Amino acid sequence: MIRIGIIGGSGYTGGELMRLLLVHPQADIICITSRQKDGEPISNTHPHLRGFTDLEFENIDPGEVAKQCDVVFTAVPHGTAMDIVPRLLDHKVKVIDLSADYRLPVDVFEQVYNLAHKAPKKAVYGLPELHPEVADSTLVANPGCYPTGAILSAAPLASQGMIEQVVFDSKSGVSGAGAQPTGVSHYPNMSQNVQAYKLTTHRHGAELQSELGQLDSSIKISFTPHVIPSVRGILTTAHLFIKEDLDIDQITRIYQTFYKDKPFIRLLSGIPSLGAVRGSNFCDIGFEIDASSRRLVVVSAIDNLVKGASGQAIQNMNLMFDLNETAGLMTPALFP
Amino acid sequence: MIRIGIIGGSGYTGGELMRLLLVHPQADIICITSRQKDGEPISNTHPHLRGFTDLEFENIDPGEVAKQCDVVFTAVPHGTAMDIVPRLLDHKVKVIDLSADYRLPVDVFEQVYNLAHKAPKKAVYGLPELHPEVADSTLVANPGCYPTGAILSAAPLASQGMIEQVVFDSKSGVSGAGAQPTGVSHYPNMSQNVQAYKLTTHRHGAELQSELGQLDSSIKISFTPHVIPSVRGILTTAHLFIKEDLDIDQITRIYQTFYKDKPFIRLLSGIPSLGAVRGSNFCDIGFEIDASSRRLVVVSAIDNLVKGASGQAIQNMNLMFDLNETAGLMTPALFP
Amino acid sequence: MIRIGIIGGSGYTGGELMRLLLVHPQADIICITSRQKDGEPISNTHPHLRGFTDLEFENIDPGEVAKQCDVVFTAVPHGTAMDIVPRLLDHKVKVIDLSADYRLPVDVFEQVYNLAHKAPKKAVYGLPELHPEVADSTLVANPGCYPTGAILSAAPLASQGMIEQVVFDSKSGVSGAGAQPTGVSHYPNMSQNVQAYKLTTHRHGAELQSELGQLDSSIKISFTPHVIPSVRGILTTAHLFIKEDLDIDQITRIYQTFYKDKPFIRLLSGIPSLGAVRGSNFCDIGFEIDASSRRLVVVSAIDNLVKGASGQAIQNMNLMFDLNETAGLMTPALFP
Amino acid sequence: MIRIGIIGGSGYTGGELMRLLLVHPQADIICITSRQKDGEPISNTHPHLRGFTDLEFENIDPGEVAKQCDVVFTAVPHGTAMDIVPRLLDHKVKVIDLSADYRLPVDVFEQVYNLAHKAPKKAVYGLPELHPEVADSTLVANPGCYPTGAILSAAPLASQGMIEQVVFDSKSGVSGAGAQPTGVSHYPNMSQNVQAYKLTTHRHGAELQSELGQLDSSIKISFTPHVIPSVRGILTTAHLFIKEDLDIDQITRIYQTFYKDKPFIRLLSGIPSLGAVRGSNFCDIGFEIDASSRRLVVVSAIDNLVKGASGQAIQNMNLMFDLNETAGLMTPALFP
Repeated sequence: MIRIGIIGGSGYTGGELMRLLLVHPQADIICITSRQKDGEPISNTHPHLRGFTDLEFENIDPGEVAKQCDVVFTAVPHGTAMDIVPRLLDHKVKVIDLSADYRLPVDVFEQVYNLAHKAPKKAVYGLPELHPEVADSTLVANPGCYPTGAILSAAPLASQGMIEQVVFDSKSGVSGAGAQPTGVSHYPNMSQNVQAYKLTTHRHGAELQSELGQLDSSIKISFTPHVIPSVRGILTTAHLFIKEDLDIDQITRIYQTFYKDKPFIRLLSGIPSLGAVRGSNFCDIGFEIDASSRRLVVVSAIDNLVKGASGQAIQNMNLMFDLNETAGLMTPALFP
Repeated sequence: MIRIGIIGGSGYTGGELMRLLLVHPQADIICITSRQKDGEPISNTHPHLRGFTDLEFENIDPGEVAKQCDVVFTAVPHGTAMDIVPRLLDHKVKVIDLSADYRLPVDVFEQVYNLAHKAPKKAVYGLPELHPEVADSTLVANPGCYPTGAILSAAPLASQGMIEQVVFDSKSGVSGAGAQPTGVSHYPNMSQNVQAYKLTTHRHGAELQSELGQLDSSIKISFTPHVIPSVRGILTTAHLFIKEDLDIDQITRIYQTFYKDKPFIRLLSGIPSLGAVRGSNFCDIGFEIDASSRRLVVVSAIDNLVKGASGQAIQNMNLMFDLNETAGLMTPALFP
Repeated sequence: MIRIGIIGGSGYTGGELMRLLLVHPQADIICITSRQKDGEPISNTHPHLRGFTDLEFENIDPGEVAKQCDVVFTAVPHGTAMDIVPRLLDHKVKVIDLSADYRLPVDVFEQVYNLAHKAPKKAVYGLPELHPEVADSTLVANPGCYPTGAILSAAPLASQGMIEQVVFDSKSGVSGAGAQPTGVSHYPNMSQNVQAYKLTTHRHGAELQSELGQLDSSIKISFTPHVIPSVRGILTTAHLFIKEDLDIDQITRIYQTFYKDKPFIRLLSGIPSLGAVRGSNFCDIGFEIDASSRRLVVVSAIDNLVKGASGQAIQNMNLMFDLNETAGLMTPALFP
Repeated sequence: MIRIGIIGGSGYTGGELMRLLLVHPQADIICITSRQKDGEPISNTHPHLRGFTDLEFENIDPGEVAKQCDVVFTAVPHGTAMDIVPRLLDHKVKVIDLSADYRLPVDVFEQVYNLAHKAPKKAVYGLPELHPEVADSTLVANPGCYPTGAILSAAPLASQGMIEQVVFDSKSGVSGAGAQPTGVSHYPNMSQNVQAYKLTTHRHGAELQSELGQLDSSIKISFTPHVIPSVRGILTTAHLFIKEDLDIDQITRIYQTFYKDKPFIRLLSGIPSLGAVRGSNFCDIGFEIDASSRRLVVVSAIDNLVKGASGQAIQNMNLMFDLNETAGLMTPALFP
């Protein structure tokens, strides 16, 4: 059994790690930290976990966590992880960081997050479909929720240098904004609404640029996020303008080849929707082509808390510990 | 492995049986029938099951199903099951019927459903917390969704003869009305609404009367159902008027004793809500007492498609085949 | 034109007063106070009012408000209104108080709200269908949202002394909890949920007892509130146990007689739902009888912010100023 | 008073015409037709109109309607209006057609709708902000819901020839799909979901091309619609790629000038959302610029049934009859 620590377990990604790891066949959660909830039962915060664990939140030092564990998930805000991750690595424990601190080149990170990086480390961007080298890594930077679905929608064509320009228009469930009540998450504001925000300036744009830019440095990327009245899920509509006339069969073949043997990518002949991935680690992808304008619209659907966060983190853990990539993750979505 | 057939697999309860059985450690789904969808891949109807099964819907005779299976779930409308169940039993297969056909005494059934019963059979009412004899049964009548949560909220006190009168006011998610679009399920009608219906005449009232009446024949029962803008879940508010002054500790003890060693009943000190049971087989129960009026308000929360239908059916299967009662069902709810 | 002041205009009831009064043919809003939002344009807080008023929130003394106005609406928390209302009355202005401070007999108020009343005044309970004497009043205590719909559902039979016992099971939209984000109003908590609360102890129970008790002192009342995933609306399911056998025609006649010439009460032959009253001042009422048990289930539907708060306050204003009772209020609901 | 007929009154746009016209100061609805609901009270279908009209649906000939009216609204499916409109015009009545039949040049219509046009007529495209000539017209083709919000978001810059390319990504409430239950509108399918559809082929694209093409024939347009879990509203995110470097002040000035004295356009400094326009005839517009890439993201919000359909039709009526453009329409949105 892999001994697991979770630093910062009181938010949605912490809760989701537990939901999945408590029934993972090779995982044993050893400790879960929270400064604010020290001493409280986990199920006070995560009511769905009642009966699954007797653990309480602890307020202990990262070094203490590391000593007891084989791997530690850090589910803390950006800017905080860089204080914790190096101390974990010092103890030779493997680390999967769900914050933004290790996802970008240091100079890009510092500019985008307007923050000096205190402790740069070599990390692998934990999108396993593009980065099988997570298997050999000790520090994985787990991707942002929006970039996961957006990159996966465009990567096959980007890898072929086929994309002139892409506009990602993403729609996220409210859980992406976290467990703390805010004006945006206030039911009367969000119900019956759709809220566009950071129309041209969302930080996840930098991840898109970084990752897709590695596949094709000339690609032009735009990204606009929205919050929709759904708890979970991100649907990304990728408006792709391509360089050559390609028919639907050619495009299908490019996607099929790129995602061959990727267990969590499902290519559909229709258009994905959130219900089919809710609660699961799948990324569903479908597309239509407008032949007359070299325009392709690709739609991807993920659960932002699973493939967009905690599920993907566990997928990375599986690879880092040479388990089956799908261990503990091959469960159907909750539909309807 | 238990070989399983599902007759009538295109609705929500059929889909939910598959969602749970496809990852059940001792289950092997052999065939799934649907007259209308004969030959279609399962995942056309149940998109969340894509990648989990290559089965197609078949339109075959119950006898053919029975020959290949150890147990058959019938997920067909009431009035139809009575045509199928006897033929399955003839083949010595065990049957778990999710329809209403075998839940009530024949005379009550005929009156409530206004339908002559063609083939009465001895069946056990499949609420395992009250009827452990399902373990020895060959035909289990799986309870209705409303009765499951309502009976469980009141049974401990009813078993003590403590209840003078009870008003069950139940709130159900829309999936309880099935997979076929109707005026009630039309999004613009249901969103931002709550629809009371069959204020005094819902057929599930007869199940409540039948089961609670076995515990205490003098109990007076009222039942009014509502549909709320949620996909899954039933919250039942049971307004109980009790015969003696009981304090909260006495009541707590009665519930704890009654539900001792019942793995799917969780007694809370607070008030249950649907999020903590969504997608799971739990029934959460909490209560408050108004000492001045011998009034107790008990709230129970279940997922109508799991504990209220398919999950409970599998719980029954586990018992009928001497498996661990929780096999394949001990997964946390999907929260948030 | 009636000159109007609103004290405490930043919440939902304040916004709703403005939404309705800005297009009321005889109303002229003179000033709107808010301590926290002093100097801010109204439309920053109430975005739907952009273009309808150039007023800004002011932080001025109640006396200053009273000097400029014919009537003042106080939309402040309970416990605060009692500091303001007497000072307004000193200036001979009429007052419509939307708080709880003047709804109950002083002794009941002090017990229920656990608060000494600083300034008791003679007030009329502003449910015009029961209290036409609001027309001659200078201080109206506008009813709570739950009591409005609950009292209206039962009053006709209570006035006949017909009710043995009633269980009010009410379902409210989230806006009833106010404009400030909380854990309950957090979208991921409230979506797909229904939250029972204060199962036996909600303060509005005292209003029910006070008002229905005036019609029939022997009536036994239970009240349990719930929050449902809707922004607006309260559906109350009143489970009535009556003293005599009455048939549906007799009951219909009692309701029709009681609500004759009440423009905002609509008696339906079917079951009310929230969509038909959303944004309007109507209270829709329907019922079914279970002859066998002397049980009647009455359902009432209101918009909690209109008939349950600000619309009713304006209805009271109309009567106090001898306008048509329906002035500014006779608009259809927003359906769908 | 203007005497009004509505042909096809049983759908949402018919209901919305009535909701608005029944309280319009200069409108008098004379008759409402429906073939299927002949003889039924309006309020059976439109429960919010109970008490506002005693009219019943009639199944009468367009000629009979025309004889009694000054203006007729045709709220019938495309392909049907072309049978009715010419007969109405023969009677010298003014016509506002809410179908697609008269919105496009005949050749474009026939290609896009794959239908031979039986009766082409000269019509004005009823977007009054761009086409003041509706005032002098006898036949107005009321715009589609998506085109209304999309055109208004881009027209100011298009009119300056500034747009190289635009991607319209639109999110519509479910009421846009009509009052008939379908798989898409089925609550369990739509709740917690967002459904992209007709990714490159939606017919409203032709309206966008036709109208924006009149402002700038070289503009390149992409359009993808989505359905979101909201009853009403369309939020359009217009991703604009512009030809020159413009700063935010220059763009603001272009929009302000273009929409000067347009009472239903509200330019915001922030980002629009659906709550602020729900139930109202406003189109709210806001934008942000990404200077580095000559990219501008404009967001427009409308109520699809009001500014996107029936409200705009009444705005057109007001202009055609020389009334105040805002008559009967200047009411705030229903927020929250």
